[in-house]
Amino acid sequence: MTSFFNDLRVRQLFDPESSTYTYLVWETTGLRAALIDPVREHFERDLTLIGELGLKLCAVIETHLHADHVTAISRFKDYYQEKLMCYIGEGAKPSEHDRFLKDGEVLDLGGSLRFKVIATPGHTNCSSCYHIGPWLFTGDTLLIRGCGRTDFQGGSAGELWRHVRKKIFVLDPDTIVYPGHDYRGMTSSTIKEEIEFNPRLNLNVTKEQFEEIMNGLGLPKPRLIETAPTRNRELGRV
Amino acid sequence: MTSFFNDLRVRQLFDPESSTYTYLVWETTGLRAALIDPVREHFERDLTLIGELGLKLCAVIETHLHADHVTAISRFKDYYQEKLMCYIGEGAKPSEHDRFLKDGEVLDLGGSLRFKVIATPGHTNCSSCYHIGPWLFTGDTLLIRGCGRTDFQGGSAGELWRHVRKKIFVLDPDTIVYPGHDYRGMTSSTIKEEIEFNPRLNLNVTKEQFEEIMNGLGLPKPRLIETAPTRNRELGRV
Repeated sequence: MTSFFNDLRVRQLFDPESSTYTYLVWETTGLRAALIDPVREHFERDLTLIGELGLKLCAVIETHLHADHVTAISRFKDYYQEKLMCYIGEGAKPSEHDRFLKDGEVLDLGGSLRFKVIATPGHTNCSSCYHIGPWLFTGDTLLIRGCGRTDFQGGSAGELWRHVRKKIFVLDPDTIVYPGHDYRGMTSSTIKEEIEFNPRLNLNVTKEQFEEIMNGLGLPKPRLIETAPTRNRELGRV
Repeated sequence: MTSFFNDLRVRQLFDPESSTYTYLVWETTGLRAALIDPVREHFERDLTLIGELGLKLCAVIETHLHADHVTAISRFKDYYQEKLMCYIGEGAKPSEHDRFLKDGEVLDLGGSLRFKVIATPGHTNCSSCYHIGPWLFTGDTLLIRGCGRTDFQGGSAGELWRHVRKKIFVLDPDTIVYPGHDYRGMTSSTIKEEIEFNPRLNLNVTKEQFEEIMNGLGLPKPRLIETAPTRNRELGRV
């Protein structure tokens, strides 16, 4: 979908292979753009769209070091040469990203393209959410009626619960949640809906209950866990 | 995604099996809602969402008689008993839909939930687009950088070209296009983008060239062509 808010726009893109959502966010005044969580295999698609819309891609922002797909950063870096910055939340070190984003800082990309960084370690130790206009890009911290697993890459169920409660569920209830994945054909939610209807994280679920749920999931290893985080640390270079 | 415009909201839903987009459109004042192109297998998902949002489903609207998935109308009809109306464009007769929508009419579902009907036969003989707020639901008439095939169900390449040019490409260029499908992970577009970048329908392509493109596609039969249109004529009842 395309959402708009003043001169801001966001367009959602999907990778059916890994059920990953990528987001192109831009402002119509100066045509500056940022891409959140681009997938390596869709570099051409996304580059074409950016070109058609006449945008200047200023930054790629990662919600975390993914274990289920490889980032397209290095491809965009190669294309734009060194004019493109790439960012990830603190905790991802050592990593080749240009800069680690600190909790609470504002990533100012010019004009109204300003993202508030909300560090939310829990799914991984470098997970962050990004807030701009009425939208919150949550990566795998908060999914629609769910959340990312917490059993690898420095994950912690207790930390995820704590950060969602203290930093995410205190935002305007009408804030639109744009997650990093969905596996049921849902595309977005709101803070209000997740507070009420998220089966794992609604306000009736205690930290201890949440930890019990997460520790009992018994999920198989992610398909690319042995390779994707290492490759993503190097911006997707093979 | 969720889009908003005054008291109107739209949420996009996806069926990975047939790459179909379903849209839930509602107004926040009276909480009246309409569902566009629901897929039978996702009845439970969509019903749950409608319940969670506290909406009153007033109508199901079909962009055409689908050949690639079966509608969920009969399931919603059974659930809401006879309080739910279902609509489709004129040309779908004989059909069990409650009413055929005429070109140019406004389907007024109460409050600001008012859809302008734009008949666009071409993909099928009953294809229509629906316009509300800044959004245009195009079904398979206009896809993102593409369009639906025109070789069955009363389809006509010339008619599709003519209707897109005369009725769709004359709308506000910033109108957001929400298509009935996408097969590349794109979720929306704008009229402006399609006028410029649609490889089949951009302004440089003549009617004759478009007919040549469409007649030369050589596509295999849709998976459900033998059963889906018949079942959809009966609102999805088996």
